[in-house]
Amino acid sequence: MTEPVLHAIVPAGGAGTRLWPLSRRAAPKFLLDLTGAGRTLLQQTLDRLAPLTGPGGTVVVTGAVHAEEVHRQLPDLGEADLLAEPAPRDSMAAIGLAAAVLQRRHGDVVVGSFAADHVIADGTAFERAVREAAEVARAGYLVTIGIEADHPSTAFGYVRAGDPVDLGGAPAPTARVVRGFTEKPDAATAERYLATGEYRWNAGMFVVRAQVLLDHLAEQRPELAAGLAEIADAWDGPARAEVLGRVWPGLEKIAIDHAIAEPVAARGGVAVVPAAMGWDDVGDFASLASILAGDGAVLGDAGLVITEASDGALVVPAGRTVAVLGIPGAVVVDTPDALLVTTREHAQRVKGVVDRLTAQGRTELL
Amino acid sequence: MTEPVLHAIVPAGGAGTRLWPLSRRAAPKFLLDLTGAGRTLLQQTLDRLAPLTGPGGTVVVTGAVHAEEVHRQLPDLGEADLLAEPAPRDSMAAIGLAAAVLQRRHGDVVVGSFAADHVIADGTAFERAVREAAEVARAGYLVTIGIEADHPSTAFGYVRAGDPVDLGGAPAPTARVVRGFTEKPDAATAERYLATGEYRWNAGMFVVRAQVLLDHLAEQRPELAAGLAEIADAWDGPARAEVLGRVWPGLEKIAIDHAIAEPVAARGGVAVVPAAMGWDDVGDFASLASILAGDGAVLGDAGLVITEASDGALVVPAGRTVAVLGIPGAVVVDTPDALLVTTREHAQRVKGVVDRLTAQGRTELL
Repeated sequence: MTEPVLHAIVPAGGAGTRLWPLSRRAAPKFLLDLTGAGRTLLQQTLDRLAPLTGPGGTVVVTGAVHAEEVHRQLPDLGEADLLAEPAPRDSMAAIGLAAAVLQRRHGDVVVGSFAADHVIADGTAFERAVREAAEVARAGYLVTIGIEADHPSTAFGYVRAGDPVDLGGAPAPTARVVRGFTEKPDAATAERYLATGEYRWNAGMFVVRAQVLLDHLAEQRPELAAGLAEIADAWDGPARAEVLGRVWPGLEKIAIDHAIAEPVAARGGVAVVPAAMGWDDVGDFASLASILAGDGAVLGDAGLVITEASDGALVVPAGRTVAVLGIPGAVVVDTPDALLVTTREHAQRVKGVVDRLTAQGRTELL
Repeated sequence: MTEPVLHAIVPAGGAGTRLWPLSRRAAPKFLLDLTGAGRTLLQQTLDRLAPLTGPGGTVVVTGAVHAEEVHRQLPDLGEADLLAEPAPRDSMAAIGLAAAVLQRRHGDVVVGSFAADHVIADGTAFERAVREAAEVARAGYLVTIGIEADHPSTAFGYVRAGDPVDLGGAPAPTARVVRGFTEKPDAATAERYLATGEYRWNAGMFVVRAQVLLDHLAEQRPELAAGLAEIADAWDGPARAEVLGRVWPGLEKIAIDHAIAEPVAARGGVAVVPAAMGWDDVGDFASLASILAGDGAVLGDAGLVITEASDGALVVPAGRTVAVLGIPGAVVVDTPDALLVTTREHAQRVKGVVDRLTAQGRTELL
């Protein structure tokens, strides 16, 4: 085994509301096998990182309620490598805490943050991109991976690439300085982005030296940085629970994009490594259907499913026979206590159903 | 209690394939509560007939496999009033046997045949029409009830009314001589039928004197008549099982329409009593949806159902929450072992799904 490329941080959170009734509070997206691979998204994330981190090179940050299931799914994950949050405080607190803990354990290593609930079809392309990102990170940049957009998606934010990064001879063949980040655009804007050739999808992956990240944080969000430092100092000692319980609830809730990536990009400190790797955030059932197959897909036992005149249907059976007749693009998700019937076209509106169940107090279904 | 108007014959058969997965071989349509009334279609049929027949005035003809469940649903039905067929031999054998048994028990009484799996919203209109039909039947006609067509349906056969029936003073204010029967027409033909004002839907109800029916049968189908006579002679004695087992399997399979109604109409022996009574044969889920409500319907616990952007949806829950999003006219039928998802528009094609299951040998689902 050669030197690890980086220490990985895997924030494992998010409700996956638009994937209800598959995804539930107690069993969110990252804990599910959504590709039929026999491995959950979380497991696949760690599988993918293993060649880059070596054994024991990943920490998972997740809600305390999911800690037991995460350990069950990742038997090789050390007790110390699961950082359990008492309650979610958004991505900056999660990633910042992990970076601070890793800095105290290992010094100013390169860390990389990779969400636990994304799908990447081409692991080799992913590995190549992360290796280059780590190289650029060593030079002091905050580095993101920019996904080659193959269609003008309105579901993702974009990162705009500028001039090539100059590392003075070190190998960074594709990295570019980031000119800025954008929120999810409307369709016309997305078309325009695509036409320029400068925009990539922001997959929310960040690679950076631990000290660089903490310095940026201290500058941009000093109170949050101080709180995380206090917790990190106590993390591997006897005071963890006391400090965590006292400090964590008061931490600012903010995404890493807003806290650091955007302000640092504004002064040229962020780089992007473009990559095509079959990435998807599995944001809704339309996305899931595309991942599983272009034209008609079953997640589960295909022997249970009959479709007729229903091209592009996605069916998730749960032990019973499911017959779908005459609904192209149908989405039928069967679970023991709840059934969803919709179409790919309405995939984004599934959240509305969950909102209604929430309003009705049907918490047992959430 | 006044004199009964007629003795009723209720053929309880038919697979109801287009209502799968609600309707199954072991639990066909007539054994189900399809209106949410708390009474099955069979029970409602007998409820409706009670004022016309008086107690004990109905015989049910059904498959031997359904005999136990029919008795369970109809605890007041006498053992002798359930005629169990060893196997289905179509409607002429079923109705002919019942008429022959009733003729032997009661003489040349008026009998009326009414399917066990139809819905009639206006019981008073039904009763009025049957009373008139019985009056006309006493004069020797084979009388059918003709449903006022409120749209040019292609799902029903039609009966064409001709001149008024003249009973020489007896009250038959609306009855007309039948000029002929037609099979299910195409849409253009159905439009034409409606425009003439002469056509009614053939609801398959026949009212006739037992002896008249048997005489027609003897003339049109002498072998079938002889077979039924042999069985009827033995029915209420010790030889029933032996004679039934020997004769029944060889009986001709033919519908009463073809065996008698059409040829007898051709020589002026059939009359029709027109009636508007909210009749429906509940032939498929589109029909069921219309019966339950014009615009969105739940058969079962409505508290389990959430619909959004799905006008006219029909949902049949089975204990689990069902969410339907963005599919107008959706039909979602949940059962413990099978789920159907389709639309009203495709209701007629549900049979194709059952055919596929049959071809796959999935008999446990049929």
